[in-house]
Amino acid sequence: MVTTTVPYGSKRERFQQTFAIVRRELLDVFAAQGVPDDAQSWYTRIIDYNVPGGKLNRALSVVDSVEIIKGHPLSDHEFLQAAVLGWAVEFLQAFFLVLDDLMDKSLTRRGQPCYYRVPEVGTIAVNDAVLIESALYTLLKLHFRNETYYIDLVELFHETTLQTGTGQLLDLITAPEDTVDLSKISLEKFQLIARYKTAYYSFYLPVALAMLMCEIPETYQSRSSGETVHAYKVARSILLPIGEYFQVQDDFLDFAGAPEQIGKVGTDIVDNKCSWCINTALAAASPEQRAVLETSYGQRDPAMEAKVKAVFEEVGLREEYRAYEEKVHAEIVASIESVPDDEGKALKRRIFTEFLEKIYRRQK
Amino acid sequence: MVTTTVPYGSKRERFQQTFAIVRRELLDVFAAQGVPDDAQSWYTRIIDYNVPGGKLNRALSVVDSVEIIKGHPLSDHEFLQAAVLGWAVEFLQAFFLVLDDLMDKSLTRRGQPCYYRVPEVGTIAVNDAVLIESALYTLLKLHFRNETYYIDLVELFHETTLQTGTGQLLDLITAPEDTVDLSKISLEKFQLIARYKTAYYSFYLPVALAMLMCEIPETYQSRSSGETVHAYKVARSILLPIGEYFQVQDDFLDFAGAPEQIGKVGTDIVDNKCSWCINTALAAASPEQRAVLETSYGQRDPAMEAKVKAVFEEVGLREEYRAYEEKVHAEIVASIESVPDDEGKALKRRIFTEFLEKIYRRQK
Repeated sequence: MVTTTVPYGSKRERFQQTFAIVRRELLDVFAAQGVPDDAQSWYTRIIDYNVPGGKLNRALSVVDSVEIIKGHPLSDHEFLQAAVLGWAVEFLQAFFLVLDDLMDKSLTRRGQPCYYRVPEVGTIAVNDAVLIESALYTLLKLHFRNETYYIDLVELFHETTLQTGTGQLLDLITAPEDTVDLSKISLEKFQLIARYKTAYYSFYLPVALAMLMCEIPETYQSRSSGETVHAYKVARSILLPIGEYFQVQDDFLDFAGAPEQIGKVGTDIVDNKCSWCINTALAAASPEQRAVLETSYGQRDPAMEAKVKAVFEEVGLREEYRAYEEKVHAEIVASIESVPDDEGKALKRRIFTEFLEKIYRRQK
Repeated sequence: MVTTTVPYGSKRERFQQTFAIVRRELLDVFAAQGVPDDAQSWYTRIIDYNVPGGKLNRALSVVDSVEIIKGHPLSDHEFLQAAVLGWAVEFLQAFFLVLDDLMDKSLTRRGQPCYYRVPEVGTIAVNDAVLIESALYTLLKLHFRNETYYIDLVELFHETTLQTGTGQLLDLITAPEDTVDLSKISLEKFQLIARYKTAYYSFYLPVALAMLMCEIPETYQSRSSGETVHAYKVARSILLPIGEYFQVQDDFLDFAGAPEQIGKVGTDIVDNKCSWCINTALAAASPEQRAVLETSYGQRDPAMEAKVKAVFEEVGLREEYRAYEEKVHAEIVASIESVPDDEGKALKRRIFTEFLEKIYRRQK
């Protein structure tokens, strides 16, 4: 059905070139409904404004994982199929980001005003997000309808949508923007939010899509070790901790990262975020330090923010972070090493090590 | 998998009793994620506040259609499956209504404040809507995963979501709340919006779900007439005009209905709605009458509203409506009569006549 040839280039460039294909397909499906030109232009802007401008790491993870599992350079057809799954992840993310920005009243995203802040858009963004979500299922249907694993792809996106929506709900009711109540947050809640809101869609989803496309079965017997491998469960058991580790880094860099390196000034403290930093500091704080955190956290006042930062330093958050990073890295390395590394339609350790290496000790 | 017995009673009561079953299943799936009690209570309220309180006509249409096609009283298992599809339609509708009310800044819905106006909710309603949508796919998976037509059900909901979102977009950009421009609207746009925003999900979806559950194939050869029947295309060709007719009635009753009968005071004129009335009046208006409509439509001023109503009377909107109703009714009757009425897994005329009889000459 799709005969367009993807030109070669660097993997990122080769991936980016597939955007023109999926974009054209979606505009054609939309126009085929018989809607007038102004609606078609609006739909085009929904996609162009919200989908292609991200870092595309999640999408590229799909392509990388497919290549690792297949064990050979991808044919044009294989590359396009992997890329479509990558774009589907980017559409899912765009759907959530459009809604999150509206709920959080955020100002900018990817160097431009958040979509709901475009003058004619406003709350129409909410319906536009529905169309972004819908587009990903159109893409799956166009490219995978004849594959035996088509329904598995669809169900995985449904499941991930529930998980991400659940994570968003936990975050919204644990730390509402206007009430500060540190007794409601904890490292356990931080962990739950990190897994549901971020890790499932950013880490597990791309790999699980690649596994489905490469037809890795739910369970198989390892040729090397003889043991029964529950492939998707194993992938989850490694990727969710990696996702949580990634979120810890994000939170730590928001506090301690160099703004010129991370590209922004951290706002988690004034925003009353249920971050790794505040939860770790609370766990280590004396009653006096806790009192300072309780009065000063989540306040839009630079003096209060400075007091919170001082307590973070006093309780040794930097050392806690270094210790956490080494410990969790070692644990993840160990769990990757326990995966049997088999030929063919089976898990490969390198899927996971590539992820881990990309983020270990990152400074931005 | 589902062994609960549905007690007998009137069809509506029997249907309503199934809500406890689907509700319990959804709460269990949500809780199984390991989320804390406050999130579970929040999720429970999302469902209870938004899903069960409607007129349930769409849901009951699924059950009625299944019964007509099967041609015998439904077993408990058949009834529950049909009811689950009915609830899935109600969840889809709840998803859209929560978002529409927030976009339209509506005040009340089904006799209670719109969900986004519940004090702690606000824009969190947007994420809660995502969870409502997600729930319908959970229900499909729990009850239909082993059926050969499972993927067809899922695709039909995806397709209907795109259509309804497209209709909503057309409506939002054709008649924005704050700018009145009658040159942008027309009977063609009215028709397009009525079909996409309402008719697909309210009229085609319930019947098509019933047809899929009864395994009516895409095309079959009629035993009575010998012709090839494109079943879903035929259903669409009858149900979309019925849906459009229903919307015309809604718009006419908003202008001419008795408030004590329709249960509300019409606001389409002051709300700048792209309704059947304004488009029909514009088509019949003299240049002077058109000028009155252009200055007075969509203004929050009772005197202006009265002027618009006067023009509606002058151009003979009541007679136009009576003529429209008889014409469209006759056309739909004719197209129903052209459907071959076969035994077994085939279309029945009665699916359509029941719909048409319920709405013909309705006063509320």
